[in-house]
Amino acid sequence: MQNNRYDRGWEKLKEIDGEAGEKIIESLKEVAPEFGKFIIEFPFGDIYSRSGLDLKSREIATVAALTALGHALPQLKVHVHGALNVGCSRKEVIEIIIQMAVYAGFPAALNAIFATKEVFDERDKNGLDK
Amino acid sequence: MQNNRYDRGWEKLKEIDGEAGEKIIESLKEVAPEFGKFIIEFPFGDIYSRSGLDLKSREIATVAALTALGHALPQLKVHVHGALNVGCSRKEVIEIIIQMAVYAGFPAALNAIFATKEVFDERDKNGLDK
Amino acid sequence: MQNNRYDRGWEKLKEIDGEAGEKIIESLKEVAPEFGKFIIEFPFGDIYSRSGLDLKSREIATVAALTALGHALPQLKVHVHGALNVGCSRKEVIEIIIQMAVYAGFPAALNAIFATKEVFDERDKNGLDK
Amino acid sequence: MQNNRYDRGWEKLKEIDGEAGEKIIESLKEVAPEFGKFIIEFPFGDIYSRSGLDLKSREIATVAALTALGHALPQLKVHVHGALNVGCSRKEVIEIIIQMAVYAGFPAALNAIFATKEVFDERDKNGLDK
Amino acid sequence: MQNNRYDRGWEKLKEIDGEAGEKIIESLKEVAPEFGKFIIEFPFGDIYSRSGLDLKSREIATVAALTALGHALPQLKVHVHGALNVGCSRKEVIEIIIQMAVYAGFPAALNAIFATKEVFDERDKNGLDK
Amino acid sequence: MQNNRYDRGWEKLKEIDGEAGEKIIESLKEVAPEFGKFIIEFPFGDIYSRSGLDLKSREIATVAALTALGHALPQLKVHVHGALNVGCSRKEVIEIIIQMAVYAGFPAALNAIFATKEVFDERDKNGLDK
Repeated sequence: MQNNRYDRGWEKLKEIDGEAGEKIIESLKEVAPEFGKFIIEFPFGDIYSRSGLDLKSREIATVAALTALGHALPQLKVHVHGALNVGCSRKEVIEIIIQMAVYAGFPAALNAIFATKEVFDERDKNGLDK
Repeated sequence: MQNNRYDRGWEKLKEIDGEAGEKIIESLKEVAPEFGKFIIEFPFGDIYSRSGLDLKSREIATVAALTALGHALPQLKVHVHGALNVGCSRKEVIEIIIQMAVYAGFPAALNAIFATKEVFDERDKNGLDK
Repeated sequence: MQNNRYDRGWEKLKEIDGEAGEKIIESLKEVAPEFGKFIIEFPFGDIYSRSGLDLKSREIATVAALTALGHALPQLKVHVHGALNVGCSRKEVIEIIIQMAVYAGFPAALNAIFATKEVFDERDKNGLDK
Repeated sequence: MQNNRYDRGWEKLKEIDGEAGEKIIESLKEVAPEFGKFIIEFPFGDIYSRSGLDLKSREIATVAALTALGHALPQLKVHVHGALNVGCSRKEVIEIIIQMAVYAGFPAALNAIFATKEVFDERDKNGLDK
Repeated sequence: MQNNRYDRGWEKLKEIDGEAGEKIIESLKEVAPEFGKFIIEFPFGDIYSRSGLDLKSREIATVAALTALGHALPQLKVHVHGALNVGCSRKEVIEIIIQMAVYAGFPAALNAIFATKEVFDERDKNGLDK
Repeated sequence: MQNNRYDRGWEKLKEIDGEAGEKIIESLKEVAPEFGKFIIEFPFGDIYSRSGLDLKSREIATVAALTALGHALPQLKVHVHGALNVGCSRKEVIEIIIQMAVYAGFPAALNAIFATKEVFDERDKNGLDK
């Protein structure tokens, strides 16, 4: 059954975060490969694979939380890709982050905006239309 | 124009948070009435009134962020009401919070689940079907 | 294999946190039973069951982190039980928390001390000698 | 010399926080008396005793930080007493906290306002004119 | 009236943060111009423009909070400029940050000290005498 | 007696953090030398010098807390050196950090893993066998 979690998680990670997600797992291979396995199995194999909330809504929640936390900008960038990949528009991503100024303060929102701009620029460079 | 922000914010606050939101403004009247005015004008008059993201998505983002912050359980309870008032199901609220275990840790998610249960119980007592 | 994770996790949760841990799982049954299952499977079935770090060291790490986070006092209380159950002395628990004043500030350490005192008092009442 | 730090700190703690501060040291006597000693010596004997910033400014900084942290409401209440004791007006305390909505979000500011109201009510009951 | 908030905020932002503040608004123009407008209107037009607390005290509060938050070093640097611009000495800024070791831990204070040193160096290079 | 705290702290800092710790004190000399003195005296002279918890356990607690805080990666790197210097294996350090995914979320753990990898690489380059 564990293989199911891993396989399901791996597919889900690729569906949501794409190349940006795969790179994280790759970068863990040398120093903590088992942590890469846990990322695939628990967040992606267990959580994002659940029914009860659609993927776009899940990414809205994740972008909001990663903005509010303040210390998670690398992960925010991966999930801005994720949000756009599963159906959010760029405008919607920006709206979520602006709203976080209310709950986590303007600095957290501001840092998230600039990290998001890097993702948009990268996607422009790669010819992605959103 | 400021009156517009206030009036628009007040309507939006009542639409989203209902009685739970009005009580907060009321409770500020004695100690910091101008802070109540700012809550109406900025988060509700300026942010939640924006187009570009539907209200249900905005509440998903807020429930996620308030869970992740960890110190905002009273506000989380108000916005669990809010999420249910604008179209989330109870199941969706629970899914958002469970997902936060991934980003903010199990304690933040666990405390949020118990706060949410209190909201569900209160709504049951008041005969609300969701 | 998933059953293995669940069974192993359940045994580990009982070994570490004892009755305090079981109560949490019980309290989730009505509102979010699947979250209880995740708690058993991931933190306890996957993480605490790993070799590479002894249980006492794991509880030292957890008491430190729950103190530093600041918003996790209910979970800290469970893991003060846990630390004492797997071999820490009361003095060691207090030392860990005092040390956190350096990294997370005096308020976080102070709140953790008072939460810990409640656990010690409860254990005194139950006739536990440590 | 350590006695100097302790004596100087104890005088400073009484000057700033008054009875509210003394109670904290008292409450630590049973569970972690050495932590009470550290509180007297380091924050009060070393830091608040320094020249270079007047006491009122130091309390403004502390009220701001304890509001922003979110998990430090018991300590905030002690330092609202402190701020008023060393020269802040109630209005100034409220202004500091409202300003924190900008940097730490509205929930942190809101929770701090309500904690501060409790301090004001207590001081009214004790016949303090500010 | 909204124009009043914007104009008043823009003047206040320039008075406090100077060029460092204007650059932030400028950098938002492409990705989220409306967020730049909110920064001008709410923190600067609404909050810093209030009477009841002098500007120097407001900057003391902000430097303290941005240090304590830990994730707001870019904003801290802008407000170290701000604090110096409205009347704080360099020594006072350092004192505020050292004091934060008590409330938010030594790492937050240490990172803030190094960020502040960059601001001091920049101001030295620009021939500012404080 | 204060000299005792300073001397004892300086020896303890060198024992635990080695060159990485000395560099921090050095880097404070120009901007805030008294803060360097406080770091030596309080965390190292007062806390790490206490009996009641062995140094390896203290470093386990510190690595856990610095990971969980999220904003303390430079200090985490110093204390990964520290943990290895006083008896932790690399594997144990990685285990502590992985465990933090449970309490502080996957992003905090992930950022800590990558910071730790830099320390391991540096130690490899310096020919340290652990």
